[in-house]
Amino acid sequence: MDEEKKENLKQRAKHNGQRLKAFFCWVLLSVGIGAVIGGGVGTLFYYTLQWCTQIRMQHSWLLYLLPLGGLFIVWLYHICGVKKSRGTDLVLLAIRSPQPLPARMAPLIFAATGITHLFGGSAGREGAALQIGGSLAYGTGRLFKLDEKSLHIVTMCGMGAVFSALFGMPVVAGVFALEVISVGEMYYSALVPVCISSVLASGIAQKLGAKPAHFVIAAMPGGIHLQTAMQTALLAALCGLVAILFCRVLHLAGKLYTRFLPNQYIRVLVGSALIIGITLLAGTTDYEGAGGNVIARAICGQARPEAFLMKILLTALTLGAGFKGGEIVPSFFIGATFGCWMGGLLGLNPGLAAAIGLISLFCGVVNCPITALLLGCSMFGYSGAPYFFLACAISYALSGYTGLYAEQTILYSKFHAKFINKKAE
Amino acid sequence: MDEEKKENLKQRAKHNGQRLKAFFCWVLLSVGIGAVIGGGVGTLFYYTLQWCTQIRMQHSWLLYLLPLGGLFIVWLYHICGVKKSRGTDLVLLAIRSPQPLPARMAPLIFAATGITHLFGGSAGREGAALQIGGSLAYGTGRLFKLDEKSLHIVTMCGMGAVFSALFGMPVVAGVFALEVISVGEMYYSALVPVCISSVLASGIAQKLGAKPAHFVIAAMPGGIHLQTAMQTALLAALCGLVAILFCRVLHLAGKLYTRFLPNQYIRVLVGSALIIGITLLAGTTDYEGAGGNVIARAICGQARPEAFLMKILLTALTLGAGFKGGEIVPSFFIGATFGCWMGGLLGLNPGLAAAIGLISLFCGVVNCPITALLLGCSMFGYSGAPYFFLACAISYALSGYTGLYAEQTILYSKFHAKFINKKAE
Repeated sequence: MDEEKKENLKQRAKHNGQRLKAFFCWVLLSVGIGAVIGGGVGTLFYYTLQWCTQIRMQHSWLLYLLPLGGLFIVWLYHICGVKKSRGTDLVLLAIRSPQPLPARMAPLIFAATGITHLFGGSAGREGAALQIGGSLAYGTGRLFKLDEKSLHIVTMCGMGAVFSALFGMPVVAGVFALEVISVGEMYYSALVPVCISSVLASGIAQKLGAKPAHFVIAAMPGGIHLQTAMQTALLAALCGLVAILFCRVLHLAGKLYTRFLPNQYIRVLVGSALIIGITLLAGTTDYEGAGGNVIARAICGQARPEAFLMKILLTALTLGAGFKGGEIVPSFFIGATFGCWMGGLLGLNPGLAAAIGLISLFCGVVNCPITALLLGCSMFGYSGAPYFFLACAISYALSGYTGLYAEQTILYSKFHAKFINKKAE
Repeated sequence: MDEEKKENLKQRAKHNGQRLKAFFCWVLLSVGIGAVIGGGVGTLFYYTLQWCTQIRMQHSWLLYLLPLGGLFIVWLYHICGVKKSRGTDLVLLAIRSPQPLPARMAPLIFAATGITHLFGGSAGREGAALQIGGSLAYGTGRLFKLDEKSLHIVTMCGMGAVFSALFGMPVVAGVFALEVISVGEMYYSALVPVCISSVLASGIAQKLGAKPAHFVIAAMPGGIHLQTAMQTALLAALCGLVAILFCRVLHLAGKLYTRFLPNQYIRVLVGSALIIGITLLAGTTDYEGAGGNVIARAICGQARPEAFLMKILLTALTLGAGFKGGEIVPSFFIGATFGCWMGGLLGLNPGLAAAIGLISLFCGVVNCPITALLLGCSMFGYSGAPYFFLACAISYALSGYTGLYAEQTILYSKFHAKFINKKAE
């Protein structure tokens, strides 16, 4: 009996030793990914896009070179042998399945996103961040001969790290990487590595001068007021519908382009022409690039009523034509401008309404309520958290099963207590 | 073809109509639960415990009546036919399985927790909150003849609502209800109802004068500093070990009591005698009740080195003897005092260290990293979020599979990318 106890203890010690070893291996690996891929490549990407945006704002004629930029992107993907660019979907798939991620994805999307921003295409940058981080980290994992399941974790680390360096929001980036793949599941096996990579990447980026997005809302209510809560809920419900509209228009633009313009070179030329034409008609540069300044203005309480529709249209035309970037900052733009305008009509303070709109729309298109909640707290402070929570919940439910990523799965029904495990539409 | 399309659209409209109907039914039900069970019963519970604590602090001799209080609790549970009180575990089980929740649980735990606090037992209150909310909401659901799956949702609403009213933290309470049952799964089918109940309950409680716990940490660092991050990680790792110690001592005390004192009346008498003896020897009332004032002092940077051990011992003696309450506020106490002391030794600012300790220990014993992160942001503001995230992740991993709730399941390995679905130890 005593012998048996001793053996038992020995087994246990060995088991705990193995656990600790695994823990420290992950700590080392995630420090490397956070520092090199997040802090290094991520910060480089941040400054590249900043530079592109500045140059474009100084030289408005760059818009006329958009067709050339587009042709270059299509040619670049062509000579690298990427026939059908599945972008962020491929990253999500690589985390859920044995699907490999080619490392050449990183320089390709890096360059293509820079070009899109330089010449005034309407697109974000976080899709690019997820692809750069995911594919580089996946490649690193292959170098270290990790097994398939560990490759999934390492890919999430990369996603979180570059996202975190780019936006300066480590908590949001880390939780997003854990939440986005299968909505309803949190990949907690990856919690420690993803957290370390994200925090480290953001820390390095900030040391190198990158600035996180943070806004102060003057009219943030203290405590919980019934009327504000009801206005918030109503606005979030409407944002859920706008989220559906945005996703549908994106899908539709992609379909129409492919059907009527099967040749990719002609497609990107026609797309560029449409973008230039609409931008000239609109008479504003508001819809070029990510549109950070328009988001800031909306949160200060100023937005044009048609801005959200224009951004939906131009983003769909840009991404559908073959330009690169992402859909998330456009979703911030659409949500903030719609929220600012509609919230004013509903009697909410327009600045608070822009914040509610931003996170509701984000939540509606990515189906990640916890990430959206943390995004709100990170951008606007924790005092609005109860309203953000409410907005995320309502927009999550009422945006239905639409989503940006066709490879995202939604595990639970949004309306009944039921396991459904269906793909986003 | 046209006919078919029309039929298709009709089907779709019908389907969406059903979804909307389900949505609005849940909104109505959750408003009712949030207002009556959360805002009503929850606030009443809040004031009852406040009153008990005040009276006890004014009359220190009440401690000597602890044995009488204990006898009364045991008798109360006996005449109500509750042989083995499984407490919060029963609530978790009722959400995962067809296990029914008796409504008489609510008044029983309400009274027993009040008695424990009045006479100076060392215990929290949130376990009681979960049981009161869960069982009342379950009963309400039965009244409305909900099916089994909907009963699960309604039970979560109740848990979140009373927790939220009691602590004034609607976001933490709501996410806790979604996260705690199966770690790694977020029950997003319940997102909207749980969110509405929690926010409403907290709003009503605040209108009725309940005050949420909020602390301002003077030394909160802006941005991310490598040294502070490493100190945070180290402290969180130690807190993970203290979390294991706390859970083990709780389990051990329960076992020893049952083995050596099978009679429940004698058990509660002996337990009371031990608690009184140790309290007199310690020469302080710090360990009576929940100990909110000690937590506040620790966050101001003052804590005795032995405080966390004393609290572990006294909480185990109190709850094992048959008194009622919860383990979460004690875990705040243990974490804050341990963090304040140990953080000082590690070179961290003691106030910040107390905050890190509090959330790390909470995370370690309930295995809920997202809830713990939000708890930190809610109590101490969002500016410390990257550190809180790091602390939660490390403590989550290094506390292993121990936990307060035997009926909690942990879905993913904490060390490898593997689905394990095991119960907390």
